Amino acid sequence: MGEVRDKAALARAAAARMNTLSTEEKNSALLRMADALIANQESIIEAIQEDLERGRAGGTSESLLDRLKLTEERIMGIAEGLRQIVELPDPVGDKLEAFSRPNGLQIEKIRVPLGVIGMIYEARPNVTVDAAGLCLKTGNAVVLRGGSAAIASNKQIVEVLRKTLADTKMPPDALQLIEDSDRRSVDEMLKLNGLLDVVIPRGGASLIRNVVENATVPVIETGAGICHTYLDESAEPAMASDIALNAKAQRPSVCNAMETLLVHRSFANDHLPSIAGRLRDAGVELRGCEAVRALLPDTADAPAPEYDHEYNDYILNIRIVDSLDEALGHIRQYGTMHSECIVTENAEHAARFMQEIDAAAVYHNASTRFTDGFEFGFGAEIGISTQKLHARGPMGLPALTSTKYRIYGTGQIRG
Amino acid sequence: MGEVRDKAALARAAAARMNTLSTEEKNSALLRMADALIANQESIIEAIQEDLERGRAGGTSESLLDRLKLTEERIMGIAEGLRQIVELPDPVGDKLEAFSRPNGLQIEKIRVPLGVIGMIYEARPNVTVDAAGLCLKTGNAVVLRGGSAAIASNKQIVEVLRKTLADTKMPPDALQLIEDSDRRSVDEMLKLNGLLDVVIPRGGASLIRNVVENATVPVIETGAGICHTYLDESAEPAMASDIALNAKAQRPSVCNAMETLLVHRSFANDHLPSIAGRLRDAGVELRGCEAVRALLPDTADAPAPEYDHEYNDYILNIRIVDSLDEALGHIRQYGTMHSECIVTENAEHAARFMQEIDAAAVYHNASTRFTDGFEFGFGAEIGISTQKLHARGPMGLPALTSTKYRIYGTGQIRG
Repeated sequence: MGEVRDKAALARAAAARMNTLSTEEKNSALLRMADALIANQESIIEAIQEDLERGRAGGTSESLLDRLKLTEERIMGIAEGLRQIVELPDPVGDKLEAFSRPNGLQIEKIRVPLGVIGMIYEARPNVTVDAAGLCLKTGNAVVLRGGSAAIASNKQIVEVLRKTLADTKMPPDALQLIEDSDRRSVDEMLKLNGLLDVVIPRGGASLIRNVVENATVPVIETGAGICHTYLDESAEPAMASDIALNAKAQRPSVCNAMETLLVHRSFANDHLPSIAGRLRDAGVELRGCEAVRALLPDTADAPAPEYDHEYNDYILNIRIVDSLDEALGHIRQYGTMHSECIVTENAEHAARFMQEIDAAAVYHNASTRFTDGFEFGFGAEIGISTQKLHARGPMGLPALTSTKYRIYGTGQIRG
Repeated sequence: MGEVRDKAALARAAAARMNTLSTEEKNSALLRMADALIANQESIIEAIQEDLERGRAGGTSESLLDRLKLTEERIMGIAEGLRQIVELPDPVGDKLEAFSRPNGLQIEKIRVPLGVIGMIYEARPNVTVDAAGLCLKTGNAVVLRGGSAAIASNKQIVEVLRKTLADTKMPPDALQLIEDSDRRSVDEMLKLNGLLDVVIPRGGASLIRNVVENATVPVIETGAGICHTYLDESAEPAMASDIALNAKAQRPSVCNAMETLLVHRSFANDHLPSIAGRLRDAGVELRGCEAVRALLPDTADAPAPEYDHEYNDYILNIRIVDSLDEALGHIRQYGTMHSECIVTENAEHAARFMQEIDAAAVYHNASTRFTDGFEFGFGAEIGISTQKLHARGPMGLPALTSTKYRIYGTGQIRG
């Protein structure tokens, strides 16, 4: 159990040095990291074999193992991701506010690194490099705790990167990997107030719930998305159909995919059968409320909709509603405040939806699948925050920073 | 135990309505609240008598009881505080960003209310009104849990305010007071994920520690301040003396007061004796390191300095250091990242201190006592955040808001 605290303490000490690095020094280190991954790809691919064999022996499915796999091509892509982070503007040092007071004090609000970030995640080793790159670019130290399935490759990757940092201005101790794959190492991280400034969980619902329920360190909650699309009475039929299909079926496994389609009764009568047909053709199982079952006879034997469940799969709830207010009420009750959409040609309904829905991203006439740091043009994404403090929605580099006030005086004292 | 959850659920329902109020509707309600406090001052003063009598019977000291006391004058001041909140600009609805994407999506980032805020605080009933005013002004619902010492007056105040809200556009259920003074009611609030969006503790160290350690709802940590002032070799002596005296003795009980004075050795030899004299004259007990004890013989018998303790009292640690780096190291080890000051005429030393010290407020040549929402010109203060997420330093109205993205499309789907 000494590993977690010891490595966090090393990261904390390195954070002070990180805070003094220039953008050029950070970028130069990131480029060296990218080169080193490619130069050392053989040793990394060897390590992943170890992970794959252990997984196979333990009965992990081939499709899951395929996600872990690192090939020359994938390592090239991971290195390219680091180079793209280099190209992004560095938010650290940005002057967000500057004002003076009647007593002559000059006050500035400046972006600074968060300090030490704990990342807790599952599975794929590309997250190891991506998270490291984003945290280091913003002048933070980072303590990574990846999933046990990729432990050998994570160890090899971090060893390569730390060795490379030794030849740069960036302290290798700013990058730490917890190797203890016992769950207690996660629990220990969650209580490291004073050593970690924030913990960011990335992964499935149970991982995130464990972090939220047990952390005393501040958390940025990411992930869960029970997203809705509401097709209003006046929706343009072709647009409504395209958006519904895209929101559900383009990639159902992700958090910004639709779980429930809400349809105004009069629109449903005219258009739901054809929309349902396209969804079925895309392989989506439809589960409907009573009115839907009456309208779409082939849904009569499907299981009942579970409105509070995130399927992340080719399954869709459909519910017919009588009004915008009923749709708003449904979303208020079941939504996870991630991404919500209205399709309508009625400007007043659109305005009410955009105002009244309390979610990270609210859409008028566009697919919820756009909730993503890259789609928003941030050039990076450390996750999608579903909480309201600090950052909400797709998180780019600024979400990995804090601020401080600098106050310049000429001897002012308080009267 | 039903009270806490029931009232939070009422607040959650009211939050949806709060989110649709205009600035004028909110301000008009706040003005009515101010008037109602004055119109009902007799009943409030009666209620506080009950608190005072119960306190006296329980052996509470008269000085503590004096802080609880509500007079006509104090109620006038509290009402005036509400009117000042009305005058502040409403941050809700501010467009923080607006950009378009190559696919034609128009994206806006808008300030929105946080939702439901839980305030956990001690003692004075003026906090009840002040916190309610700030939370309601920013379109939030609020669940207040004040200290048991003022329970009768808090109940009376909230009853008056809720009755008043019934005649306004603001829903009375947006203002809730937990009346159960058992500590379990606090513990229950801390776990109300889904009903509370954030918990803000205001009070002593043990209250804040309990909240941070037990909350699963996101927390904005406030309060603890072990603040330092470093008098550099080149400090201007009169300025250094004035700032040190002000930072310690102007109001030692608050979080931005200095706990430890760090003095460069050569400056100490020439100037510490006279500074120490002024501090002593102000009633401050001095506790020094060995070098200080040698320089100031009368400190030889004082207790040893406790550098990691927040005295909040007329007690000051003094430590002599040999360099700026030693001062930075001391602050890194013992500081709570609240407010830190360097007094120096050396521009390079000032720049290093302002860059390298990781604190909410870093001062060059001014007293740490200025870390305060009113002194910063925010016109309000819900507390001083000592964490790095969401808000850091004095928190004005924007700290009580979140953001959301509104995305306007014309049928865009993701490819």
